[in-house]
Amino acid sequence: MEYRVIGQSVPKKEAGEKVTGRMQYSGDLIFPDLLIGKILHSPVPHARILNIDTSRASALPGVKAVITHKDTPHILTGRSVKDRPVLAWDRVHFIGDQVAAVAAVDEETAIEALDLIKVEYEELPSVFSPKEAIEIGAPIVHPDLASYKSDAVLKPQGNILEQGKLVRGDVKQAWDKCYLIYEDDYSTPVVYQGFTQPHETTAVVDTLGRITVWASNKAPFILRQMIAQALDLPIARIHIASVAVGGDFGGKGTAQTEPICVLLALKSHRPVRLTLNREEELTATFLKEATTTHIKLGVSREGMLLVVQGHITYDTGAYCDLTGGMGRSCNDLHGPYRIPNVDLTANRVYTNNSPRGHMRAPPTPQPVFAMESHLDMVASKLGIDPVEFRLKNAVEEGDILPTGQKIMNPGIKETLRRTREYLRQEKGESRPNVGWGMASFQYHGMAIDPSGIIRDRKMTQSSAWVKFNEDGSVVLVSGVTEQGCGPLTIFSQMVAEVLGISYDDVSVVAMDTDATPFEYGTGASQTTSRVGFSVKMAAEDARNQLIEATAEKLGVEPASLVARGGRVYVQGDPKKGLSIAEAAAAATAQQGTPILATGAKLRKSKLMGASKEEWLDAPQHGTHAVQVEVDPDTGQVRLLKYFACHDVGFALNPQTVEGQIEGGVGFGVGYALSEAVLSRNGKTLNPNLTDYRIPTSLDMVDIKSELVEIPSISGPFGIKGLGEATNVPAAPAIANAIYNAVGVRVTNLPITAEKIYLALKARSGK
Amino acid sequence: MEYRVIGQSVPKKEAGEKVTGRMQYSGDLIFPDLLIGKILHSPVPHARILNIDTSRASALPGVKAVITHKDTPHILTGRSVKDRPVLAWDRVHFIGDQVAAVAAVDEETAIEALDLIKVEYEELPSVFSPKEAIEIGAPIVHPDLASYKSDAVLKPQGNILEQGKLVRGDVKQAWDKCYLIYEDDYSTPVVYQGFTQPHETTAVVDTLGRITVWASNKAPFILRQMIAQALDLPIARIHIASVAVGGDFGGKGTAQTEPICVLLALKSHRPVRLTLNREEELTATFLKEATTTHIKLGVSREGMLLVVQGHITYDTGAYCDLTGGMGRSCNDLHGPYRIPNVDLTANRVYTNNSPRGHMRAPPTPQPVFAMESHLDMVASKLGIDPVEFRLKNAVEEGDILPTGQKIMNPGIKETLRRTREYLRQEKGESRPNVGWGMASFQYHGMAIDPSGIIRDRKMTQSSAWVKFNEDGSVVLVSGVTEQGCGPLTIFSQMVAEVLGISYDDVSVVAMDTDATPFEYGTGASQTTSRVGFSVKMAAEDARNQLIEATAEKLGVEPASLVARGGRVYVQGDPKKGLSIAEAAAAATAQQGTPILATGAKLRKSKLMGASKEEWLDAPQHGTHAVQVEVDPDTGQVRLLKYFACHDVGFALNPQTVEGQIEGGVGFGVGYALSEAVLSRNGKTLNPNLTDYRIPTSLDMVDIKSELVEIPSISGPFGIKGLGEATNVPAAPAIANAIYNAVGVRVTNLPITAEKIYLALKARSGK
Repeated sequence: MEYRVIGQSVPKKEAGEKVTGRMQYSGDLIFPDLLIGKILHSPVPHARILNIDTSRASALPGVKAVITHKDTPHILTGRSVKDRPVLAWDRVHFIGDQVAAVAAVDEETAIEALDLIKVEYEELPSVFSPKEAIEIGAPIVHPDLASYKSDAVLKPQGNILEQGKLVRGDVKQAWDKCYLIYEDDYSTPVVYQGFTQPHETTAVVDTLGRITVWASNKAPFILRQMIAQALDLPIARIHIASVAVGGDFGGKGTAQTEPICVLLALKSHRPVRLTLNREEELTATFLKEATTTHIKLGVSREGMLLVVQGHITYDTGAYCDLTGGMGRSCNDLHGPYRIPNVDLTANRVYTNNSPRGHMRAPPTPQPVFAMESHLDMVASKLGIDPVEFRLKNAVEEGDILPTGQKIMNPGIKETLRRTREYLRQEKGESRPNVGWGMASFQYHGMAIDPSGIIRDRKMTQSSAWVKFNEDGSVVLVSGVTEQGCGPLTIFSQMVAEVLGISYDDVSVVAMDTDATPFEYGTGASQTTSRVGFSVKMAAEDARNQLIEATAEKLGVEPASLVARGGRVYVQGDPKKGLSIAEAAAAATAQQGTPILATGAKLRKSKLMGASKEEWLDAPQHGTHAVQVEVDPDTGQVRLLKYFACHDVGFALNPQTVEGQIEGGVGFGVGYALSEAVLSRNGKTLNPNLTDYRIPTSLDMVDIKSELVEIPSISGPFGIKGLGEATNVPAAPAIANAIYNAVGVRVTNLPITAEKIYLALKARSGK
Repeated sequence: MEYRVIGQSVPKKEAGEKVTGRMQYSGDLIFPDLLIGKILHSPVPHARILNIDTSRASALPGVKAVITHKDTPHILTGRSVKDRPVLAWDRVHFIGDQVAAVAAVDEETAIEALDLIKVEYEELPSVFSPKEAIEIGAPIVHPDLASYKSDAVLKPQGNILEQGKLVRGDVKQAWDKCYLIYEDDYSTPVVYQGFTQPHETTAVVDTLGRITVWASNKAPFILRQMIAQALDLPIARIHIASVAVGGDFGGKGTAQTEPICVLLALKSHRPVRLTLNREEELTATFLKEATTTHIKLGVSREGMLLVVQGHITYDTGAYCDLTGGMGRSCNDLHGPYRIPNVDLTANRVYTNNSPRGHMRAPPTPQPVFAMESHLDMVASKLGIDPVEFRLKNAVEEGDILPTGQKIMNPGIKETLRRTREYLRQEKGESRPNVGWGMASFQYHGMAIDPSGIIRDRKMTQSSAWVKFNEDGSVVLVSGVTEQGCGPLTIFSQMVAEVLGISYDDVSVVAMDTDATPFEYGTGASQTTSRVGFSVKMAAEDARNQLIEATAEKLGVEPASLVARGGRVYVQGDPKKGLSIAEAAAAATAQQGTPILATGAKLRKSKLMGASKEEWLDAPQHGTHAVQVEVDPDTGQVRLLKYFACHDVGFALNPQTVEGQIEGGVGFGVGYALSEAVLSRNGKTLNPNLTDYRIPTSLDMVDIKSELVEIPSISGPFGIKGLGEATNVPAAPAIANAIYNAVGVRVTNLPITAEKIYLALKARSGK
């Protein structure tokens, strides 16, 4: 099949607006009577609220609304775990918990009003690590949650919110057959999604009480449900309107400040904007969980993996809201390998740290860092090349994972072979303090959930419409959010391809809960596959309507017609046909209405009607390789070369694919070398972007992206998911490269110069 | 049938936003880099353009774009008659013709730039009245138009653009049978639509060249076509976005300043706003045509109408753009009466006056003023009560008009009977200088076109979607514009009624060429019937889907189910059923996609597939009665009482119906007593709202609205059109009342105090 529009690197639709600064974000909206909202956060990690006195704040001139839990319906909320009040009503659970909020004519007045709110706390014992939290007698973070009436799927047992398990074979017996058994501990820190645009919401209530919300949120239909649920309002009263979202990376998929902003607008009867500053971002939003992992791995003399035992613990902080799934974590720890004996477990544990949630590829980067570091140590002990070691053990077509998933069209081996070829060409002579490292991964997107929990089946869906204009150009109507990764561009390409029209003839109406059909949201590396499925279906429905109308008008068989090059014509006889505009007009005349075509992907129907293999998204595979140079005197790491090879199934728009890879690698580099939100007793020590170090362009290196295209059976046009996992293998690849450069194995991220320096010093001291 | 939501006076959805001043109009939109556009108008009525020098204007600091015809593709444009350039390229045709435009950082700079544009004109002979314009040897306003290649339906012959004719019987013979023959001449002035919001457009071009336009325009899909046609751009590049429109009354149904604003935005690469001031409104937009009418009428001794001969001439000015139809004018002159012998003609004639177009009920108020004044004179000469005279002659069920239209469910006689009853109660004793007057009318909306011209069949259509939210609330998606008459409210009522849900559970997405399906536009008193047809069809489609899904889920027959009170249940057994939310969820699960229902009204299919009777909209009938007091010393007229009786078929929302009537009467009062745009040699003498006198609330009187509800067969729920014709009988009713008060018959509108005073003086002088 030769494609004409897909497979081309057409520019992103919104790129020009973004680089010229004209794109409208929630914070750019102007209303003459706009108020500024501010939130009062708890200064203590765990306490009972005895009293809140807002009288002085309310009396301050310029203050138009002050809200506390008394203005809320006392309902716990959250996307997959309902554990959080909009405003704390009986207790606070972390330093940063939301206690009250104000709306005032300007930010200075709002801040002054916060200072005037007097809250009496009775402090309670706190717990700041999962290790302490699961000890008998530890303070329980949410003692009442297990009995709280809600439709949440998960209920905590003590402080353990969620447990995952993956088993296969007979682990106990397997150890005896091993030539080498190696075990170690790994840890990863709390990190921040680091989007350009902070969380910000603008809410306006009209005179009929209908609420319009412009939010930095990638899942507007879910947000609408969550605001309705949290504030006990009918869905029909809430309209999430279209606005650009400046980055997400997992941090903008649930309701955070939106319900507070809505409450302030309802109480003040004026438009309200609520924007978090970076200190609030780093102390009071859902960041990526710190983990600790223990791995014990056994291999044969030939380097075949025989057995793995492991455990990973996630510190979910005071609230979870949206979990990546502990069953999936076990599967990610297992990786794209054949291992006959498996015993992996994972825990998600509440503490009084700030809350943790989704961040690019949850919950995968943590276990993959541990396992891919571990594999390299084993390869090194066996004296096997790490690429060959993984090639020996990688899954192949038809393999069954311990989860029951059948591997189909896997790309892992091809990415390993391409990496081998790259390294063969690039390796050159060895130099002191310079080393190569590599790592692979397997990532599943959302569909697989080995813990058996498929949440909210009726919501896991996508729908799209294709509407014809009178000249044969079309509008794609989709509820998908553009948060930076280019879905609107790619879907326009799909529509143009299917209809045989030009990319410029496809306009998009996106992300508006009134104007567009229900959409689960952008994310989970599923946008192109899930939404693309419904977009392609809608475009095919439109094409069928065009073909039917043309067939009737020309008196030919529909099966003889094709839509290509802006025309619908008899295959092999292009003159016998109609222009798209004529075909659309014929359809309008025959149907009595302009063409409106629909497509949908409903997870439930797939689950009920299709085999397990079919509904599973294709696993994502990739391998990264990196060359680093370590300064032995300072421990400073410099990246020299970077190779990122991903099996994308089919590259619908190679440039956006490469953009995803480059962005993901940058993400992984920060995770590997510099990023960590530090805290002591629940207090964040570096809540700013000076002390929390995200890599800059000067820290980066040119990235060579290599695309493998082994088509999936589940994605439209054979595509596989990509967006999140691009960051996953970066940290272990860099850790392995550092080890190969200077012989130092750092098992706790980030691998700062200080850690390398101290390790080198300790070694030379020996 | 008992209705639950329709028939109720629910408040207009947007009323609160309007009265609080929060409604967003085109002029309220804020962009940081917004430019202000201004137009250079011709100072001469007819001239050749020899040269345009924009060099000094372009050089003025702050000027970002100067455009002339050189920036346009030299294409004539217009909605039904393509006779107008975006910017004049060879000749100007009236004082006010658009010659050039500028965009600058502020209005002062833009005005200064206009002064710096030097245009050399070679003046040509002009013609300012149709009488002169049709003389042999008169200057021809558009000598090249007849040969200009365009898809316009009308081509002028000399200065006569359009002619209409209505004949029946044998007029020549009929005069002999008459007991009384009476003839007279009537005239009406140029008047202004007088909306609160002037014409204003904001246009923004994005970095891909796509243009978004927020316009004071009631027909966004037509506007999109017109901008595309005038500027030779693809439709896909143009997006007309949702914004409130502050009144229309016929003046906002075609492209006026929009293409110029778009050109300025394209050339400056910045957002541009172009707002006309009142002087421009009154000199350079499409106002209501002045007319002259001659009528000769013959009756029997018993007061039966036997024969009418008449001619009416419309001065269309320099451009027509959008004609009301001369065939329709003849039919309106004929009125809701049985007349066996008819010979009526109408002309639309070009002159070098400013252009004329649509205004509330085109082209009807002018002929109705003439005929209803004339009928009263005949009644008075016969000594018959004017109500009885009309009752004797009014059409009845099954009558065939000279156009061929069969009269079905006519309301004329009932409105006359109700008026007779009202007058019987109110008349009281006769007082000096106080008199009652009345007048009736028949108005047809758009469907009937006796001249045989049905324009642009594929466009005369409406489509609507109904989308379900996950809680069973719905969104109506319609391309209709809210320009003040409340369609969104009424359509929400219709949807709620059909689905058996609450009015609050219906939200609306309206008027956006990307987000909504094709819509012809608001207007022609057709919105409720035409758009309502597709809205009702979409709601019924949605209800059917709900019922099908419920039937399948409950295992019952679909035919046994009803949707009422927020549930779908077995009729007679309300417990056996599902809530709307459950039914919607069942439909989603069964169909694989949330419910999306569609409805459409396509004129073409009606024309082709249905009988002529069926596709004709029901004729609108009504009768007004008014009591006035005339000051014999000054000629000043004071309204004492006003009664307006309309057959509306069915009052979907009685309050909005009454609002239409009250607004229409106010319109008619201005037409009757004070409004006239005066000009001399093409130069407007009173281009401001001080000298052009629109009635204020102090000039008005309480209006008693009386609704007759004789259902139509063509309108949804039996409704008949109403909006425009509410103003039609006001002027003749007032003229007749003045005659009855002081015995003076003024045949040329407006009936100013001066005219009455002079007539009284002339009479007493005799």
